[in-house]
Amino acid sequence: MVRVTVWGENVHERNEEAVRAIYPDGMHGAIAAGLKEYLGDAVSVRTATLDQPEHGLAQDVLDATDVLTWWGHIAHDQVDDAVVERVHAAMLGGMGLLALHSAHYSKILKRALGTSCSLRWRNVGERELVWTVNPAHPIAAGVPHPIVIDAQEMYGEHFDIPEPDELVFISSFAGGEVFRGGCCFQRGAGRIFYFSPGDQDYPVYHHPAIKRVLANAARWAAPRTRGPVPDAPNAPRDWYLA
Amino acid sequence: MVRVTVWGENVHERNEEAVRAIYPDGMHGAIAAGLKEYLGDAVSVRTATLDQPEHGLAQDVLDATDVLTWWGHIAHDQVDDAVVERVHAAMLGGMGLLALHSAHYSKILKRALGTSCSLRWRNVGERELVWTVNPAHPIAAGVPHPIVIDAQEMYGEHFDIPEPDELVFISSFAGGEVFRGGCCFQRGAGRIFYFSPGDQDYPVYHHPAIKRVLANAARWAAPRTRGPVPDAPNAPRDWYLA
Amino acid sequence: MVRVTVWGENVHERNEEAVRAIYPDGMHGAIAAGLKEYLGDAVSVRTATLDQPEHGLAQDVLDATDVLTWWGHIAHDQVDDAVVERVHAAMLGGMGLLALHSAHYSKILKRALGTSCSLRWRNVGERELVWTVNPAHPIAAGVPHPIVIDAQEMYGEHFDIPEPDELVFISSFAGGEVFRGGCCFQRGAGRIFYFSPGDQDYPVYHHPAIKRVLANAARWAAPRTRGPVPDAPNAPRDWYLA
Amino acid sequence: MVRVTVWGENVHERNEEAVRAIYPDGMHGAIAAGLKEYLGDAVSVRTATLDQPEHGLAQDVLDATDVLTWWGHIAHDQVDDAVVERVHAAMLGGMGLLALHSAHYSKILKRALGTSCSLRWRNVGERELVWTVNPAHPIAAGVPHPIVIDAQEMYGEHFDIPEPDELVFISSFAGGEVFRGGCCFQRGAGRIFYFSPGDQDYPVYHHPAIKRVLANAARWAAPRTRGPVPDAPNAPRDWYLA
Repeated sequence: MVRVTVWGENVHERNEEAVRAIYPDGMHGAIAAGLKEYLGDAVSVRTATLDQPEHGLAQDVLDATDVLTWWGHIAHDQVDDAVVERVHAAMLGGMGLLALHSAHYSKILKRALGTSCSLRWRNVGERELVWTVNPAHPIAAGVPHPIVIDAQEMYGEHFDIPEPDELVFISSFAGGEVFRGGCCFQRGAGRIFYFSPGDQDYPVYHHPAIKRVLANAARWAAPRTRGPVPDAPNAPRDWYLA
Repeated sequence: MVRVTVWGENVHERNEEAVRAIYPDGMHGAIAAGLKEYLGDAVSVRTATLDQPEHGLAQDVLDATDVLTWWGHIAHDQVDDAVVERVHAAMLGGMGLLALHSAHYSKILKRALGTSCSLRWRNVGERELVWTVNPAHPIAAGVPHPIVIDAQEMYGEHFDIPEPDELVFISSFAGGEVFRGGCCFQRGAGRIFYFSPGDQDYPVYHHPAIKRVLANAARWAAPRTRGPVPDAPNAPRDWYLA
Repeated sequence: MVRVTVWGENVHERNEEAVRAIYPDGMHGAIAAGLKEYLGDAVSVRTATLDQPEHGLAQDVLDATDVLTWWGHIAHDQVDDAVVERVHAAMLGGMGLLALHSAHYSKILKRALGTSCSLRWRNVGERELVWTVNPAHPIAAGVPHPIVIDAQEMYGEHFDIPEPDELVFISSFAGGEVFRGGCCFQRGAGRIFYFSPGDQDYPVYHHPAIKRVLANAARWAAPRTRGPVPDAPNAPRDWYLA
Repeated sequence: MVRVTVWGENVHERNEEAVRAIYPDGMHGAIAAGLKEYLGDAVSVRTATLDQPEHGLAQDVLDATDVLTWWGHIAHDQVDDAVVERVHAAMLGGMGLLALHSAHYSKILKRALGTSCSLRWRNVGERELVWTVNPAHPIAAGVPHPIVIDAQEMYGEHFDIPEPDELVFISSFAGGEVFRGGCCFQRGAGRIFYFSPGDQDYPVYHHPAIKRVLANAARWAAPRTRGPVPDAPNAPRDWYLA
């Protein structure tokens, strides 16, 4: 069973009626519901939000988390650096991380990837098509080609990320732009999946194909090993023969 | 100086008046002219075509070729297997290869990549936008972002290739499809660049930005080393201390 | 359940008493036994050999094979090209392939990778250490670091392969050479794992850690999708809205 | 001409007579001299050290630096975070970075790569062999295969780094360990080369083949583009047609 913690910034949902109308239980609530709908007994889901103590991400929560999903946007700067360090350490030790949409600019993703993670954007509610470029990838299993999202914020290249270890999805937008919107990375023992659909102004996390992608990604990112961040051990000659 | 051999199938140009009107000197002629225009004294260019003996690719030609460009479409099957082997061996030994547009289905590219190289297509003359996803790559130097091609054949995902070593360009089309149209691979000592714009029905090789890409790619693919295909030498203990 | 077909050239075992002493049931027999020992009910294993009709690899066998393991050495040239094509097509459609030791020079691996697959070698029975460079990779699960193999043939760099999609193991030898001996590739929908330990002169396939690697690799290479080799469909405008 | 700034921690050289005997002009002095010896008029070299104001890396120095080499060990923690930010920004904008030996644990490399960069080590002065695994890579040009270093500190796997974009060298040690000691990464527009030989206790930077590698790497890492760290521009519909 994969233990997922769905982290939500939960600011737009509280402050903007239009967002609340789409996501009455918060975006984190919708994401959590989608995981339960698609993974059933194969998943246990909890949520955590910015306004909780330690943003709901105390060490014991991370220790019991196989995969952390992260949605943030307007309050990236309010995320405590100590929590970011803790999440980063958990990830290097094996915890999976799903960074969603505007989390491209989250502290944790920038720290893991080491680049600016900048991109072009335009929010006019245009059609996004999500194309699979690696149909044999576990995250693409059962996903329509393309996913049609009627209205979304545009995210376009250049997206300043390291060359992904695996590229799974590329989006196009009605305005003509393209975006590497489904990217896999490994950092330490942890698997990272960045997935771009999901602006707060549109009901993207209610879309069946998006739920499918997130469910697949949660399985994929579940740790194969889990441990502390490795340090640098002194290794006497022939230590491995002992 | 980079010595380029521009290989052209040269069938559409001879058989179809519309193509001849666009490319009176053949597509190979246009490609060669573009390289000379953009690289000047830094390049020497010759051309070779299917109808020549050994398709114009005798061993001494390959030995004097740093980079081979390949455009073929309707006559892939007429390319002699022995010539394909010879080109493949030259490439493993260090010769660069630029595979253009419908050369996705050429014998040489399929042999080098080991996949089917299949893709979706539609030829209705729609707009193609070529987006740079690695602006620091030498092949993207001085290339507009995006390149706007008013009319082109659509090539769309899924494109059945190995994960490229470097992805430089992604195209979108008016119909919404995307395509990994600028991909770098290394096989043996040889560098390969696949570049998708360039159907025979449109004047793509007269487009300044396309000429720029091909000129950049010729420089990039020029060999750093050149030799025979390596064999498997027996290596006595401590041979490297001799 | 993963359905594995273990293919063996089965020539050394029949012609050389020393090899037969190590592998009385053939190398394929030992590999098959190891898979059953480590995977139990999670695997079904059959074997096939060069001397059988169609080398034991008729289409219906491949259709019922999730993962094919391949060991060959002295008789690579006797493998029928039609069978190689059939295996290649199955692999592009999703079948996994484990290419073992001297299968670096098999027709199927060279066809899939597109390079010469040459390497250095020396057969003096020296110690090989197999080091894990990606401990979170599923193929490395439960594998000692390093694996100590008391006597093996040396395989050394340069190994002329494409840059692997994932590098899992690097070997060192008593003589000082190194070798990228555990490499993952994807071609089409098929996963390939090349694993270098396993010369016929040494009881490598009886080594517990080697059995563990092969069992892990069989699981890893099992297909996520399975189908024909994709062709190149014409795609009318807006086909995806139908 | 490539403008290189050679940064040295310069602590061991001042505090330890044995190191000073090997590197009377500091390790940075030896590295700078090697670059000048191998690149001649194609390079201009300056040095900078920890004890200088802003560690010798004021903004105007970075602005005039194409490639920064970094050697640090015992004083990583004394490097000011503001300087690390500045170097990181310059690198994302295109500046090359050569991280040498114990700089695996430097703030700048960890920030760029996002992992712990931990490794095994043993300092008993054993033989290191540096094997080329990508002979066509520009950094390997003219480099002996293997480089034989009579005495070095052992660095061994597991090395906790992201999968390199290109792997050029793998080392083996007399004790049997292996290490991915020559790794290429790109972050933003900047190229990074990590190269492991070079402990302060041994005259590694006086070794001709090591000088050759560093000279090659300086050329390779020189920027193709240079600019600010990209931000995230709003892009109105059809902006690219303007």
